[in-house]
Amino acid sequence: MSTLPADVSAALRADFDAVAAIGRDPAGGWTRSAYGDHECEAHRWFAATAEAAGLAVRQDAFGNSIARREGRPGAPAIAIGSHLDTVTHGGLFDGALGVLAGLEIARRVAPGPEDLALEIIAFRDEEGRFGALTGSRAMAGDLPHDALSMRDADGTGLRSAMREAGFPVESALVAKRNLSEIAAYLELHIEQGPVLEAGGESVGIVTAIAGQKRLAIRFTGTAGHAGTTPMELRHDAFAAAAEFAVGFRDMIVEEGQGTARGTIGIVKTSPNQGNVIPGEVRIGLEIRDASAALLAHLAERTAALATEAGARHGVEAGHRVVYEAAPVPMAPQLMDLLEGQARALAIPCRRLLSGANHDAGILGAHIPAAMLFVPSRGGVSHTPDEHTDWHHIEAAVAVLEHGVRLLVSPHRSR
Amino acid sequence: MSTLPADVSAALRADFDAVAAIGRDPAGGWTRSAYGDHECEAHRWFAATAEAAGLAVRQDAFGNSIARREGRPGAPAIAIGSHLDTVTHGGLFDGALGVLAGLEIARRVAPGPEDLALEIIAFRDEEGRFGALTGSRAMAGDLPHDALSMRDADGTGLRSAMREAGFPVESALVAKRNLSEIAAYLELHIEQGPVLEAGGESVGIVTAIAGQKRLAIRFTGTAGHAGTTPMELRHDAFAAAAEFAVGFRDMIVEEGQGTARGTIGIVKTSPNQGNVIPGEVRIGLEIRDASAALLAHLAERTAALATEAGARHGVEAGHRVVYEAAPVPMAPQLMDLLEGQARALAIPCRRLLSGANHDAGILGAHIPAAMLFVPSRGGVSHTPDEHTDWHHIEAAVAVLEHGVRLLVSPHRSR
Repeated sequence: MSTLPADVSAALRADFDAVAAIGRDPAGGWTRSAYGDHECEAHRWFAATAEAAGLAVRQDAFGNSIARREGRPGAPAIAIGSHLDTVTHGGLFDGALGVLAGLEIARRVAPGPEDLALEIIAFRDEEGRFGALTGSRAMAGDLPHDALSMRDADGTGLRSAMREAGFPVESALVAKRNLSEIAAYLELHIEQGPVLEAGGESVGIVTAIAGQKRLAIRFTGTAGHAGTTPMELRHDAFAAAAEFAVGFRDMIVEEGQGTARGTIGIVKTSPNQGNVIPGEVRIGLEIRDASAALLAHLAERTAALATEAGARHGVEAGHRVVYEAAPVPMAPQLMDLLEGQARALAIPCRRLLSGANHDAGILGAHIPAAMLFVPSRGGVSHTPDEHTDWHHIEAAVAVLEHGVRLLVSPHRSR
Repeated sequence: MSTLPADVSAALRADFDAVAAIGRDPAGGWTRSAYGDHECEAHRWFAATAEAAGLAVRQDAFGNSIARREGRPGAPAIAIGSHLDTVTHGGLFDGALGVLAGLEIARRVAPGPEDLALEIIAFRDEEGRFGALTGSRAMAGDLPHDALSMRDADGTGLRSAMREAGFPVESALVAKRNLSEIAAYLELHIEQGPVLEAGGESVGIVTAIAGQKRLAIRFTGTAGHAGTTPMELRHDAFAAAAEFAVGFRDMIVEEGQGTARGTIGIVKTSPNQGNVIPGEVRIGLEIRDASAALLAHLAERTAALATEAGARHGVEAGHRVVYEAAPVPMAPQLMDLLEGQARALAIPCRRLLSGANHDAGILGAHIPAAMLFVPSRGGVSHTPDEHTDWHHIEAAVAVLEHGVRLLVSPHRSR
């Protein structure tokens, strides 16, 4: 599949071996938590590797690493980025792939004196030890004022974790960058889903980062003795919740235009005893789509379905939106450019929605951004089993390389 | 409603006041755990009260208290019983009502020299600190051989709890009684359900103790990223479980002949995270009915529904029966006799199934037994709010009294 001779990517393979040695977790996979020793070690490795390739490396106030190759003095940069942190017991490819691909591109592409600059960025805390996408949000100025008070699952504060890692930040806004310094942001990432594998494509062109609405729904019925309460006198909260769940899934499939995703991930039944009719069920669900209008419609229909299911069982249904994020469309001209390169290289590709958020979703709300996906074997991610075949990676790096060449030298016709 | 002058039941009211003072829980309601200080205190009060009424009182090897008024020498007894233990934070009426009603009957009915004996029995551990219905099962010889190894929720063993309470039993069979000593067993109990209140009846004649099947059902799908997995590529264990739950309820209503009860009380979804498609759902359900054949049919249909719902979602469905108990019909001649007394006293009554098990369900598998129910306000039980209006209690005690008079003196025409 690859259009590159195998030895071209020897350095990329070596980089994977190097990163695979950082944060290997004795209990399985890799654990490089944000601002922890292993993430910091990965950033030191990144700096050394980029400098060896001739890039200038700095870290911003939040610890994001920025490796830069200058073009025309004062020119903005084409930036390629992703992250080096992992979830606990995570895989080798999530995040690291995008950073390593960037380093590989930087070895292959040298901006000329009339060109734009080239930047490779390794963001901090994409996985959310503290809040998720913390590094890119800091760079975009999107962190809330109280962001430094965020705590991880063990109660450690972001402020103290950063201080320990050598970043004694006193304001969440201190890493905010003038984003006009970046002409376009590109990110290569594993799909973390089954679409490309199912379709046999090596490369996915991401159309948008899905917007998201999370709803908490509570069904309040009447707990009662499972033996003594006839069926017709029940106010069974789980009967209502189950009926709602079936209707919710059908509605997403029927009205979601083939793109929307709706998931009931959390179900808490109480008292959750074998001989007691459930008096309360709390459901946590989320809906994702690229269209804000469709998201709004689906959320409205969801609330109505809950009310209707409750009413049929004499059960009260309440709902509230606990989180929402607007969809972030990728830049059409970047999508076209990347797709054109894939077609020119005869690499099977397709457009697809990113259901998960990425650093490109943060920067893409401010500046033109694009993402390439490569297939995840079995759709699996966030586990040690995470895997992407090497020929897909070579294909995607080739598409990225050719795209970056065009972007870095917009004045040249190629 | 009552056919008795108010002062006739002054002693019964006083007994309720006395029992209400035993095991009052500072955190709410009453807590008289089996073989604990408060249950033992209640049994001492029972013995003193019965002896004051002229009955001879003994405790069997398991601590069940038996108060007896003799009739013809060697004659079997008409026994009235229930229990004095409660659930944690339980109510005033569950169990105590039946024992106190028995004491009241013993004050009103004195067997003559040609009559059967009269017994009032207070059983131990009906509520199941250890296994449930332990006292009556011990008397019936129904305890398993390893019963003394049963432990409560805190890990205390039955053997040591009994020893501490003064019953150093070494065999589960030691309290087994020759049940031909009891000609009939009668129990007055609160309904613990909403049927009598809904129908406006003061007294219910129990037709049977429902049999029961408990099934554990496990749906095994594939956990996946809620954002990255399209609807059509999912193996969502909760989607299958919800569809099963809707079908289960509909099936119980449609095929349960108006008597069966089916309840999904336990739902455990994993990983139970907002952004992860559930990979596994474990359901605990139970089915109850008076007909063993119908129970078997409903359990079979339940298993089929689980398999079908799983298949529609690419989810594996497994099931196993984790508990089953055969239905215990009450004795038809006793039901007729009690219903006749209610009608003669113009007390509104109806026949109904007991969905819950009772000591009468244990003894009724061996000897003729019958139960009277009185309405539970709001159908509520096992909480401090448990309540039954006094006029219903007086009505039921009157029915019981007249029934016992007939049963104790079968040779007399009345």
